[in-house]
Amino acid sequence: MTEPVALRQTILRSATKQVTIGHEHPFCIIGERINPTGRKIFQEALRAGDLSLIEKDVAAQVAGGADVLDVNMGVPLTDEAELLENAIRLVQSLTDLPICIDSSVVEALEAGLAAYQGRALVNSVTAEDERLAAILPLVKKYDAAVVALPNDHDEIPMESGKRIELVGKIVRVATEEYGISIDDIVIDPLAMPIGADSSVGATALETIREIKARWGLNMTCGASNVSFGMPGRHAINAAWLPLAMGAGMTSAIMDARTPAVVESVRAADLLLGHDEWGGTWIRMHRAKVAAAAAAEAAAAEAAAAATPAP
Amino acid sequence: MTEPVALRQTILRSATKQVTIGHEHPFCIIGERINPTGRKIFQEALRAGDLSLIEKDVAAQVAGGADVLDVNMGVPLTDEAELLENAIRLVQSLTDLPICIDSSVVEALEAGLAAYQGRALVNSVTAEDERLAAILPLVKKYDAAVVALPNDHDEIPMESGKRIELVGKIVRVATEEYGISIDDIVIDPLAMPIGADSSVGATALETIREIKARWGLNMTCGASNVSFGMPGRHAINAAWLPLAMGAGMTSAIMDARTPAVVESVRAADLLLGHDEWGGTWIRMHRAKVAAAAAAEAAAAEAAAAATPAP
Repeated sequence: MTEPVALRQTILRSATKQVTIGHEHPFCIIGERINPTGRKIFQEALRAGDLSLIEKDVAAQVAGGADVLDVNMGVPLTDEAELLENAIRLVQSLTDLPICIDSSVVEALEAGLAAYQGRALVNSVTAEDERLAAILPLVKKYDAAVVALPNDHDEIPMESGKRIELVGKIVRVATEEYGISIDDIVIDPLAMPIGADSSVGATALETIREIKARWGLNMTCGASNVSFGMPGRHAINAAWLPLAMGAGMTSAIMDARTPAVVESVRAADLLLGHDEWGGTWIRMHRAKVAAAAAAEAAAAEAAAAATPAP
Repeated sequence: MTEPVALRQTILRSATKQVTIGHEHPFCIIGERINPTGRKIFQEALRAGDLSLIEKDVAAQVAGGADVLDVNMGVPLTDEAELLENAIRLVQSLTDLPICIDSSVVEALEAGLAAYQGRALVNSVTAEDERLAAILPLVKKYDAAVVALPNDHDEIPMESGKRIELVGKIVRVATEEYGISIDDIVIDPLAMPIGADSSVGATALETIREIKARWGLNMTCGASNVSFGMPGRHAINAAWLPLAMGAGMTSAIMDARTPAVVESVRAADLLLGHDEWGGTWIRMHRAKVAAAAAAEAAAAEAAAAATPAP
């Protein structure tokens, strides 16, 4: 048996706050909602230069317990670079959480990185030569970290072995050709929808365990991908994250507005020994009880106001 | 690296139904509620020879999705052997699920085993010499399977290494001295309350992984032990089971009346590839939707009946 590898730490920063993604740290929740994909009203507002919906989304993700915010401004028929730059500035004026800059457009990533104050996470690069060559120089130039997907030429390998090979390529190219620290590479091990193929969950877990064992890398995923097309999605996502965390997943891009899924992550943190004495868990529980009591009091007050005096 | 060991299958039977506990099978939910511990009214009824509360508990565990039923009749100041024998007969008249016969009294275990029709699971034996010598001959005589706890002389080892050593002793004694099949040994890896010590979850997971790797044994646990003393227990238990299942746990003694925890188990089955095409998951979801619709219809009917005709 070989020596265990070092477990990597990915450090992200806003202008004033630092967040560490790591195997011995609480799981990093990357709030995913600041994204107009599939949201017509949001898209129209952004096209008209109205960024006000972003404020609501930021507030909701922060309130839900996000540690980092994913910002995506992919709206057809707009100047995504300008939009993303403005959105980054706006989000940084609203919160001190670090940002994951999310775009498939290289110019938009660069504009976002140039506007950002801190150490961003760039979402994302693949193992394709041209994508590596376009994005890794930006990651290096702006001293960022990067999410990398082990797929090649638009094909997603269905076996763990091929994904591991592509992770090896990404690590080699990023560290040797571009001088990026291995700590700053965050792998998305590719969890596909379980409804299409019953084996994809086990494949993703095997990939996660192997990536941790070989390189000690941090990993992230789109938390809700596995449940796509199935009923009861929140319950599936809430079971997926502890499974993935037990295997070595250290972060997820997810909607922090779903309490059952956020709770599941924080409970798994507790059980994995990443929430000493349950401090975070107990604080979350008290806030939940207080919120329920406040809602009940407000409802009672409203009911009393609606009842005519005797 | 050594060859992977065979993954064991533990076969339980009632008079008419077979259930397999195994690493490549859906998780085995052992319904735990047929137990008067801490239930004063139930205890008084049993002392008066009234077993009727058992019927309600059996129905609730079966409705909640239990695969096996744990039957414990530990009531102070009663003849536990007679009570357990009668309870086993009653439960077998009510359901075809196999039974886990649960007692710390050797005479009660024997009376229960003698009355039982099928292959029971005996709960439990420890690694103490006198317990092994008292219980394993019964397990062999009645062709049962047995839950074994790797603790010794009332001391629960806090390190994984010591537990693994005691599992080794149990396996050796059971198979070599008593001729019990290794498939019929189900280990409880001892998950302690996380509120008392932040490291116990990680220790239990390490123990589970090691037991699977060394012997391929089936494992079970009291699913709610880890959350003892903490707020939000159901959410902790619902995260614990996917973590434990990912490591190699194949069964749990748990209250099947808690939908969030049962759902979490069935979602993890789906994600681990033990629910092909999600057949069980989709069926559960449809039943839930139908039950909610029926409850709503009943409420509407009740409200209409309570409203005076115009």
